[in-house]
Amino acid sequence: MSKNRMAVIKQRPLDVPSQDDFAVVAAPMPTPEPGQVLLETVYVSVDPYVRVAIDDRTTTLFGAAQPLDTPLMGKTISRVVESRSELFHPGEHVMALSGWQKFAVADAESLQKLDPDVAPLSWWLGVLGTTGFAAYVGTTQVAPPAAGQTYVVTSAAGATGSIAGQIAGQRGARVIGIAGAKEKCDYVVNDLGFAGCVSHHAEDLVAALAEQCPDGVDHSFENVGGKPLEAVLELIKPGGIVALCGVIGSYNQANRTPGPNLWPLVRIGASIRGFRLPDYQHVREQFIHDMLGWLNAGKIKHREEVMTGIECAGEAYNRLMTSNSAGKIVVKL
Amino acid sequence: MSKNRMAVIKQRPLDVPSQDDFAVVAAPMPTPEPGQVLLETVYVSVDPYVRVAIDDRTTTLFGAAQPLDTPLMGKTISRVVESRSELFHPGEHVMALSGWQKFAVADAESLQKLDPDVAPLSWWLGVLGTTGFAAYVGTTQVAPPAAGQTYVVTSAAGATGSIAGQIAGQRGARVIGIAGAKEKCDYVVNDLGFAGCVSHHAEDLVAALAEQCPDGVDHSFENVGGKPLEAVLELIKPGGIVALCGVIGSYNQANRTPGPNLWPLVRIGASIRGFRLPDYQHVREQFIHDMLGWLNAGKIKHREEVMTGIECAGEAYNRLMTSNSAGKIVVKL
Repeated sequence: MSKNRMAVIKQRPLDVPSQDDFAVVAAPMPTPEPGQVLLETVYVSVDPYVRVAIDDRTTTLFGAAQPLDTPLMGKTISRVVESRSELFHPGEHVMALSGWQKFAVADAESLQKLDPDVAPLSWWLGVLGTTGFAAYVGTTQVAPPAAGQTYVVTSAAGATGSIAGQIAGQRGARVIGIAGAKEKCDYVVNDLGFAGCVSHHAEDLVAALAEQCPDGVDHSFENVGGKPLEAVLELIKPGGIVALCGVIGSYNQANRTPGPNLWPLVRIGASIRGFRLPDYQHVREQFIHDMLGWLNAGKIKHREEVMTGIECAGEAYNRLMTSNSAGKIVVKL
Repeated sequence: MSKNRMAVIKQRPLDVPSQDDFAVVAAPMPTPEPGQVLLETVYVSVDPYVRVAIDDRTTTLFGAAQPLDTPLMGKTISRVVESRSELFHPGEHVMALSGWQKFAVADAESLQKLDPDVAPLSWWLGVLGTTGFAAYVGTTQVAPPAAGQTYVVTSAAGATGSIAGQIAGQRGARVIGIAGAKEKCDYVVNDLGFAGCVSHHAEDLVAALAEQCPDGVDHSFENVGGKPLEAVLELIKPGGIVALCGVIGSYNQANRTPGPNLWPLVRIGASIRGFRLPDYQHVREQFIHDMLGWLNAGKIKHREEVMTGIECAGEAYNRLMTSNSAGKIVVKL
């Protein structure tokens, strides 16, 4: 009997994913061809874009939705078990796209080698991976604040928002978060150094945000859509840019919720700029350099929630999509 | 009895304006102070932004809504009747902001002199005025197409859209319009030289637009919001920009309709850029130069609908907001 197992999509979630949507099945042990390596998955990343990729009701990032009964996609940190390439040796660690399977093969040339002495391996899926890179691109390329400007980050305690706000702070901006629960607001102000934070449960969110942003909002980083974005648009200043990293608020829906009325953009002369990371690979090296510097200097803090076992796909995606995680979710297989 | 009369806001329209929302009243004859001129209004311009400015239910361009019983605002072409400034002489024509009143005074320094030999005077309210300038800024500054690119213009037969599409065409773009009635589509293709046009009444607007834009949409010019914008976002390409000139579709509403879901911006890496003309005064002279060149060479066509009499404010704004006009509406007082 093969040692290999994978978590596959059993049925397409119609709303927030649950345990019933995924099944763990036995799988044949893959065999590397010349130029390939056999990988054992150590960590798999839990990311919002995957929720989009497994839905067949709307346009995805990838064209067609991921087929049923195939292993759930995901970036991984993997250990080389067997190598048929000069590029890697058994025992080395790589960043791969193996998804939710215990063993996988990959072309050696598609893999990025990781040095465990540089940073804990799981960080390459979070603050040093897609999560941190999205925050970096949004705050340095798409909507970079100047020193002294007011920068609003929605979903401020989330894995991406928390990093985005801290990077904007490193650039000298006065950062105001929007988050849900009081403890999340306390966290971003007290632990992450945001200048202020507003709960999106506030009765009059625009008024509450205006109190924290008396001169208006210069730019913002947006990951969710919905009421917080509407409030930002009411206060945005001429030339203001909303860096739109995602609209997580609508990923679970068959008919995506409408967005904000766009009149504020015309009234004031402001923009919403969607972005995707493949278009910013030219700054990835700089990102790694900057982020390692900030992490090593203790200037940027991040949290990780490590779940365990290939069986927890449903639970992990449920936590991600209900904003119940305390930081970046990674799963240790 | 004074010869002066003005059209004032009697009650705030709750939806599309009607004749009942305005009243024509007698007014005292104004007297110019030193440095001022007395103007007689020849033409007043009918523009969507005025609909926003007279509504007190939402944020306007101007802060508070225009007070009741004051003359409806509007750009005018006016004739100098009496001058207490060296800058102007009686009989000269100027562009002013007198609004819907027969006579008005203005500071001479706030006025722009017009040469009736350069172009018919009313054109300075349309193709050479705000309407044409909005089209120019959108297509040359905010979302300028490169030669060969596919450019979509919604409200394509409208006063602004028709000019925007023709400017994009002058830049070498392949221009596709979205309009309502079949005769509007015929007009933009047969008379204005658009490469194609789709009716927004099409059962599957995305499919109909995709047929006209087989390689996707590079940029677009948007003035309305609603379904046509949603269709454009489904087809927009990486780096694509929607130049957002207005969201006329929601100007009559107390609770502005929601906008499009913003996922397409993230999926593909595209932007919606609102703009306002005061931010582009530095290109106004170039605009006049370019537009006069195109007009004189017969490269850009435009239509004007001249209504007559100060009593027609309600009818004029009704026609504007129901898209029933055949071109730029100006009113001859």
